[in-house]
Amino acid sequence: MAIDIEIARAATMRPIAEIGSKIDIPEDALIPFGRTKAKIDGSYLSSLDDKPDGKLILVTAINPTPAGEGKTTTTVGLGDGLNRIGKKAVICLREPSLGPCFGMKGGAAGGGKAQVVPMEDINLHFTGDFHAITSAHNLLSAMIDNHIYWGNELQLDQRRITWRRVLDMNDRALRSVVCSLGGVSNGFPRESGFDITVASEIMAILCLAKDLDDLQKRLGNIIIGYRRDKTAVTARDLEADGAMTVLLKEAAQPNLVQTLENNPAFVHGGPFANIAHGCNSVMATKAALKLADYVVTEAGFGADLGAEKFFNIKCRKAGLSPDAVVLVATVRALKINGGIAKDELAAENVPAVTKGCENLGRHIENIKQFGVPVVVAINHFTADTDAEVAAVKTYCEAHGVEAILATHWANGSKGTEALAQRVASLADSGTSNFAPLYDDALPLIDKIEQVAKIIYRADNIAIDKGVRYQLARWEADGFGHLPVCMAKTQYSFTTDPTLRGAPTGHSVPVREVRLSAGAGFIVAICGEIMTMPGLPSVPAATQIGLDGNGQIDGLF
Amino acid sequence: MAIDIEIARAATMRPIAEIGSKIDIPEDALIPFGRTKAKIDGSYLSSLDDKPDGKLILVTAINPTPAGEGKTTTTVGLGDGLNRIGKKAVICLREPSLGPCFGMKGGAAGGGKAQVVPMEDINLHFTGDFHAITSAHNLLSAMIDNHIYWGNELQLDQRRITWRRVLDMNDRALRSVVCSLGGVSNGFPRESGFDITVASEIMAILCLAKDLDDLQKRLGNIIIGYRRDKTAVTARDLEADGAMTVLLKEAAQPNLVQTLENNPAFVHGGPFANIAHGCNSVMATKAALKLADYVVTEAGFGADLGAEKFFNIKCRKAGLSPDAVVLVATVRALKINGGIAKDELAAENVPAVTKGCENLGRHIENIKQFGVPVVVAINHFTADTDAEVAAVKTYCEAHGVEAILATHWANGSKGTEALAQRVASLADSGTSNFAPLYDDALPLIDKIEQVAKIIYRADNIAIDKGVRYQLARWEADGFGHLPVCMAKTQYSFTTDPTLRGAPTGHSVPVREVRLSAGAGFIVAICGEIMTMPGLPSVPAATQIGLDGNGQIDGLF
Repeated sequence: MAIDIEIARAATMRPIAEIGSKIDIPEDALIPFGRTKAKIDGSYLSSLDDKPDGKLILVTAINPTPAGEGKTTTTVGLGDGLNRIGKKAVICLREPSLGPCFGMKGGAAGGGKAQVVPMEDINLHFTGDFHAITSAHNLLSAMIDNHIYWGNELQLDQRRITWRRVLDMNDRALRSVVCSLGGVSNGFPRESGFDITVASEIMAILCLAKDLDDLQKRLGNIIIGYRRDKTAVTARDLEADGAMTVLLKEAAQPNLVQTLENNPAFVHGGPFANIAHGCNSVMATKAALKLADYVVTEAGFGADLGAEKFFNIKCRKAGLSPDAVVLVATVRALKINGGIAKDELAAENVPAVTKGCENLGRHIENIKQFGVPVVVAINHFTADTDAEVAAVKTYCEAHGVEAILATHWANGSKGTEALAQRVASLADSGTSNFAPLYDDALPLIDKIEQVAKIIYRADNIAIDKGVRYQLARWEADGFGHLPVCMAKTQYSFTTDPTLRGAPTGHSVPVREVRLSAGAGFIVAICGEIMTMPGLPSVPAATQIGLDGNGQIDGLF
Repeated sequence: MAIDIEIARAATMRPIAEIGSKIDIPEDALIPFGRTKAKIDGSYLSSLDDKPDGKLILVTAINPTPAGEGKTTTTVGLGDGLNRIGKKAVICLREPSLGPCFGMKGGAAGGGKAQVVPMEDINLHFTGDFHAITSAHNLLSAMIDNHIYWGNELQLDQRRITWRRVLDMNDRALRSVVCSLGGVSNGFPRESGFDITVASEIMAILCLAKDLDDLQKRLGNIIIGYRRDKTAVTARDLEADGAMTVLLKEAAQPNLVQTLENNPAFVHGGPFANIAHGCNSVMATKAALKLADYVVTEAGFGADLGAEKFFNIKCRKAGLSPDAVVLVATVRALKINGGIAKDELAAENVPAVTKGCENLGRHIENIKQFGVPVVVAINHFTADTDAEVAAVKTYCEAHGVEAILATHWANGSKGTEALAQRVASLADSGTSNFAPLYDDALPLIDKIEQVAKIIYRADNIAIDKGVRYQLARWEADGFGHLPVCMAKTQYSFTTDPTLRGAPTGHSVPVREVRLSAGAGFIVAICGEIMTMPGLPSVPAATQIGLDGNGQIDGLF
């Protein structure tokens, strides 16, 4: 079979107005970016407020492995499948980050016959949303140092400035810098650093905001640092929130593109799935629910992180109520969860599949705790044997859940008809009884503990006095009602990335907590997290270029 | 009269396809960005190669003063005037930089009834060109530190890395930083810093490149630093040129917008006018020459810098031959050149005008030395008295040049009919006999001296042994054929910004020289230059926001 980029290029894209018309978006509500991308006018979307909502379907996965699970690919394949069986369906994806494209090979627009296009554009500058976030973030950064330079009226403690700078680039040299060097005219030297743009709190804010007013309010709430008396200084105190909103005005409008099968796809926002909630924008999801009968969306990493945050942060805060969950697994990934090494995957190994299903089983149980019905999608790889696939089905049946083989990678929507039928009937069944895991009113530390015990199945959390004090202080300052955003390795239910399957008996160390007052959550950092990646020894960038026909080579 | 933004908003913009059709661009050669902006497809533009060129008209000005001269405004007004008298004319402007919008108030899209629109878009993210340049620049930066991190096979001397990073933001805290701090996994600490994106060599390259192949070649030629033996390391050595070209593929295509009178305007590229050549892109100018009978373009700062570089760098390298020059002056600016303070401008002062005309006169002489016919445009301010305007006309007549009053700011194209008639007949006269000031073969130091003596009217240049040695070394390395790009204050013919008028008897100190091997020039730094501005004590950003109707307030 051809590689992803060849399939994408062979696709016939339809004019974006035609894609929009499939879900009744009038042409004048589309702001074109080229012929096959558009933003959807925000004022048109506000006019839809009174329409009823379609069904919301979350695609999530088992813990990721080097073998790949195909969450985005399955989201695209399911969306196409729903359209194939006559349903009006839209998918909602996250925008890929530019920086990592130049590190390891590979974009983030699905794969095989289940992709969104134009693939190169989506993976590169797209409609400029990430650039706008970079600009808004760094404007605030510049205004902070400028405020200190001109007299520091707000009495910021230069040692307690928490707002850093961002670039959409993998650049480890910027993780930790000393800035304002070079003399009086350059300011007061201090330690700081850069994160990658997807890790910006502004990215999380853009994805959680309801509208432009809410966006500006949240931007104003950002805490940029503290005074010597530890009182907080916000972006609003610096009068930066208005200009930041202006910079984000266009970026806040959802992007419309299409799948290889010319079905509508919303691709909007892409917050980090560890220090943020890892879901596409609320504005795009809500718009899609007004425009389609079925909306399929995804959440970053495995269900222990992605689905948990989708439920406890995005759905809670946006008032969304999911109707069904699709849990994606591959035979290969289950084998790795069952203890097999990557280079032993080629051989059939039914016992390893069954052993690995323990990971799948725990995610099923977890999702059920949120009250949402779940179906398992087996994302088919050509090397999977019938016996291996049967083992997954048998395991799921024994756990009261249906597992459906889906071959969208090779066959497009033809390969997801059965999955689409089942998902539609689950979503229509009215059996969802969604509720977040914990109440807003629960103390912050108890929220963290609930996630650790109920989702990660830890015996306890380990949290030292300083962190406890910090949480208590935020509660006293009025932030106790916020949900917690867990930052933990995606590879395991525990904080040890090597512990696959369904481990028990562990403790979750909460090393640090951070307040994202604009986004509206408390980040609980459990283990190492990386907010600025580096490039590998041979970056993909060295292989990227234009071929003789002006086509992009080496990007995917 | 209404303020600029009110006039701009009251304008009725036409669909961009209609604007393109005025110069016979087929709709399918336009890549829309919204309804009133488009990029012009590069492959369409290559198809025009065999068409004859229109006439090229440069708009330049006397030395800038706090009173304002209105070069961009006059470029727009003249373009509209040419269209008004039945000529097929296009204007070519530079794109404004985002960063400064948040510092001092004011965009850069003309003024009064002579503006390009959509003004907010042009001043903010526009079509993403500057963001693409920022990305390409910082990708190269990341690849440099990454190369050292993974073993430094090219043996770069960390103390001799000349390539910095860029952001499109006024942020003095980034002028000088120490990066790669924080331990082994973050690399080797070293001194570096950030410039504003318009100061990037990539901006200069984009504006001088003929096509994508030439762009990639120039990107590859960029010298990023030196080894201990002082041999140069290029972007090509790091294999970064292909990926950088991919990032700039869209940005390399000219942008089409419209004037308030719905005439076509190309707005593309915006290199710094001190450490770069300060003109819009060669690709846009050449495209415009194929599509229109008259092309009006501008060059940054006064004619001593802007026109000199337009002639000696842009025209020389791109094989352009200008047909006429419009030298813009205002009565107010002439009064300041005549020794009057800004707060004394209100009163009529004919002697001051006449005295200030010495500055104008010298620019006239200079332009004539390039063999191009010149006309003076008096950009009318409402407070100018008839006697003051008459004084300028009298002075010009005595110097064999016509001076024409233009009231485009108040009246649009009605106010530039006479100017347009005169410019068209000058351009059509065939009297232009353009030649650059010096030969490629002249030694670098002599090129600098020629500009200093012939254009700045200095007695000599002061250049120390180290700088002489550097120039000799570059000549030995094969860079002796390059033109020189002078970096000097724009406020005076001398290197002292307070010396207005037409000073003589000065010396030009050449403090430092830099090689822009990708752009293809040697920068001679004569005095202080600033490549990263700062914000003022009350940044314009604090006043910028959305009003109740979602319109942008405070940006202009």
